[in-house]
Amino acid sequence: MVNTESISVRVFSLNCWGIRYLSKYCPERYAMIGEMLAKEEYDIVLLQEVWSEKDYLYLKKKLASCHPHSHYFKSGVIGSGLAIFSKHRIHDTFLYRYSLNGYPYMAHHGDWFGGKAVGMAVLNLGSLTVNVYVTHLHAEYCREKDSYLPHRIVQAWELQQFIRHTSAGADVVIVGGDLNMHPQDLGNRLLRAYTGLRDSYVETAKFDGCENGMTLIADNPFISKKELVPFEKGIRIDYILFKGSSETDIYCDSMSTTKGSVPDRSFPYSDHEALTAELRLGVHIPTETGSDRQSKKEDSATGKLAELVDIVTEARTEVKVGLHCAEMMRYTAARTGIMGLALLFLELVIAAVPYLALGAEQPFPRTSFYLLAALCFAILLVTSLLYIFYTMELKSLQGAEDQMRLAIGSLQEKLRGFPLAGLHNPPRRPPEGQQRSAFEPEE
Amino acid sequence: MVNTESISVRVFSLNCWGIRYLSKYCPERYAMIGEMLAKEEYDIVLLQEVWSEKDYLYLKKKLASCHPHSHYFKSGVIGSGLAIFSKHRIHDTFLYRYSLNGYPYMAHHGDWFGGKAVGMAVLNLGSLTVNVYVTHLHAEYCREKDSYLPHRIVQAWELQQFIRHTSAGADVVIVGGDLNMHPQDLGNRLLRAYTGLRDSYVETAKFDGCENGMTLIADNPFISKKELVPFEKGIRIDYILFKGSSETDIYCDSMSTTKGSVPDRSFPYSDHEALTAELRLGVHIPTETGSDRQSKKEDSATGKLAELVDIVTEARTEVKVGLHCAEMMRYTAARTGIMGLALLFLELVIAAVPYLALGAEQPFPRTSFYLLAALCFAILLVTSLLYIFYTMELKSLQGAEDQMRLAIGSLQEKLRGFPLAGLHNPPRRPPEGQQRSAFEPEE
Repeated sequence: MVNTESISVRVFSLNCWGIRYLSKYCPERYAMIGEMLAKEEYDIVLLQEVWSEKDYLYLKKKLASCHPHSHYFKSGVIGSGLAIFSKHRIHDTFLYRYSLNGYPYMAHHGDWFGGKAVGMAVLNLGSLTVNVYVTHLHAEYCREKDSYLPHRIVQAWELQQFIRHTSAGADVVIVGGDLNMHPQDLGNRLLRAYTGLRDSYVETAKFDGCENGMTLIADNPFISKKELVPFEKGIRIDYILFKGSSETDIYCDSMSTTKGSVPDRSFPYSDHEALTAELRLGVHIPTETGSDRQSKKEDSATGKLAELVDIVTEARTEVKVGLHCAEMMRYTAARTGIMGLALLFLELVIAAVPYLALGAEQPFPRTSFYLLAALCFAILLVTSLLYIFYTMELKSLQGAEDQMRLAIGSLQEKLRGFPLAGLHNPPRRPPEGQQRSAFEPEE
Repeated sequence: MVNTESISVRVFSLNCWGIRYLSKYCPERYAMIGEMLAKEEYDIVLLQEVWSEKDYLYLKKKLASCHPHSHYFKSGVIGSGLAIFSKHRIHDTFLYRYSLNGYPYMAHHGDWFGGKAVGMAVLNLGSLTVNVYVTHLHAEYCREKDSYLPHRIVQAWELQQFIRHTSAGADVVIVGGDLNMHPQDLGNRLLRAYTGLRDSYVETAKFDGCENGMTLIADNPFISKKELVPFEKGIRIDYILFKGSSETDIYCDSMSTTKGSVPDRSFPYSDHEALTAELRLGVHIPTETGSDRQSKKEDSATGKLAELVDIVTEARTEVKVGLHCAEMMRYTAARTGIMGLALLFLELVIAAVPYLALGAEQPFPRTSFYLLAALCFAILLVTSLLYIFYTMELKSLQGAEDQMRLAIGSLQEKLRGFPLAGLHNPPRRPPEGQQRSAFEPEE
């Protein structure tokens, strides 16, 4: 394992808070961001919440000479808001839209319309293949009663799946973005434990920035302090994560965040702080063969596996809570719809009375009749749409839960020391449906 | 390159046509399918259109002893309809939902509600990692005027992206499913050229089945012959595709399809024919190192690259046609919505006349007034929903087009002989936005 080459990569990540006409000083801030990026010439720039393509095109023009390569990931109604600028040619891109992302009727939260996703770009740095990911997860509006928690857990689950499955051919993985999760939150642990990604704030040799690496701070003039309660000083929810491979080592030489203000300016770049990490990649000349790689896989530490089983089990519990809520909501929608239908039927019966019993007076004033009928139809339409929506939500939650159950089964199998199912005598075990508890004592 | 081991894998794929209460003889056919699968004991069974989870659970129970491992992929309102049964433990699963899949208001076609997707399962056969994919693309209802073509092209694009990016760590890739594309259709060529997947029907040493490998045939009693026009005898739209890796060879020893009937039964398994492929995997002891792998990449045949550029360019043109249509539809929705609003406004003005000009008679009969108002509201609601839907469709089409443009740029770069952008002197080229024509003469 000899270092033959050492490459330094400077990575930048920022949630730009770029809602045109709503975010404060939006054009001015984009101008500031563009100037700073043009000056700093980072290798890789990962931006979130660039909601308007016009703003992306503005930055693209401004950064044309220092970042000739860029990509804007499109998704949902106004999203995904994700953009990447690079000094190095982007060879390939891929977008994964999270299957769950809030509710369309929660329009004031707006996440659903953003079409949250994870974008991937494949670059080459020297001879190394680098997979770069940029993402933005569903916001947390109320930590005590976080109704979006199951959605965010499923997003974290899908994020780790996407990164794990698409990065097998990469020498280096770099992930940047606004995860909307604190460092020890379940989704964050799930992501790190399953992918082996390391947190640049934790790993860095040198740090310059806000206390505890916070990226949403009370000192930022765009932040309302009461939103941060009970974390008066701020929270850390933006990250630059990284990992190498069996052929490449990676280190974080330095890491920094902005501190709520920009020198000589009256306001900062965004309501989030910007992150910068300087990573050093060391290339190895691999001496191992394919079978070594396999045996290495089998050697993966039992302790870590057990921890991973616990984390996935915890995530599964959270998804089950979400499933229960979604079932309740769907049931409520169905019941309301049936009540609307019954009301419509009742109205028609009452209205039919004068025709059936000749001489009886029309019991309804016409205005009320039509208003009530319109109301019934509106109820039917809205509840039908909600029923379809909740069914889709249920399917996604069930899908994630199934995958988690299967993953736990496979991880436990590994823990028990049966890493690979033999080809001609597959272990005759009960199907995954009859899974064992994650807390069953290990053999 | 020495064959140390030879593993035989039998793969089965069938579109089950499993719409409860609508598909003919649904329970009887599932019973037949279950019996046949239990008897044949294929290694891997890939099913599509298992729309009801109950039917999946029925098969799971029936196949518990021969296929102890299985997974049902959930997506959309009633989908995805994809299921996998395996003799070998499934270590991991992942689902990718296509960003486009028809229109919800085309309820009689139903594809939108199916939540079409591609499901992946990771298995181990001996020491080999096998990535198995099962998918079902949007149906083609009218070949002459196929309004779903751009959606299917985007699905084929996303399918190739998903397979390519998730299979880097796999020794063997097996894809089965109903692609709803003829062998030489654009999407099919795109998939095969980009991923290097090979068609078992074309590659097989021995074939037993319908003429030309057809999987939707006129002789099938569930098929209406006029649906097949102008292909009187039938079409080939179901496939088992495969590829090995630099460390593993794969061959198709034999391939077969059912022929529209099942011995001793009065009807076949489905309206599609079932496919079976017997694949042989040869494991190699790799002698190459990482840098060899890199140089191999660079050696990829120029001819194939040029062909790929042409195919992606053709796909991009098709997506642009779709973009144009989606823009038109969105414009129509917006215009209709504005007309609804204008009508409502006009009605309110007319109704206000008697209040403003005292003594004037109410010009509206009440009934008409309320009916018209309800109509206006309905128009506004429906056009708003359509506008949101078409915006999402546009974003997805634009996203795919952007990715294709970027891919063409990168492929052309390779063709020109600049395979890798140097680290410290990235080529100062115009940003991707100002891309060159794919037909520009190569240097």
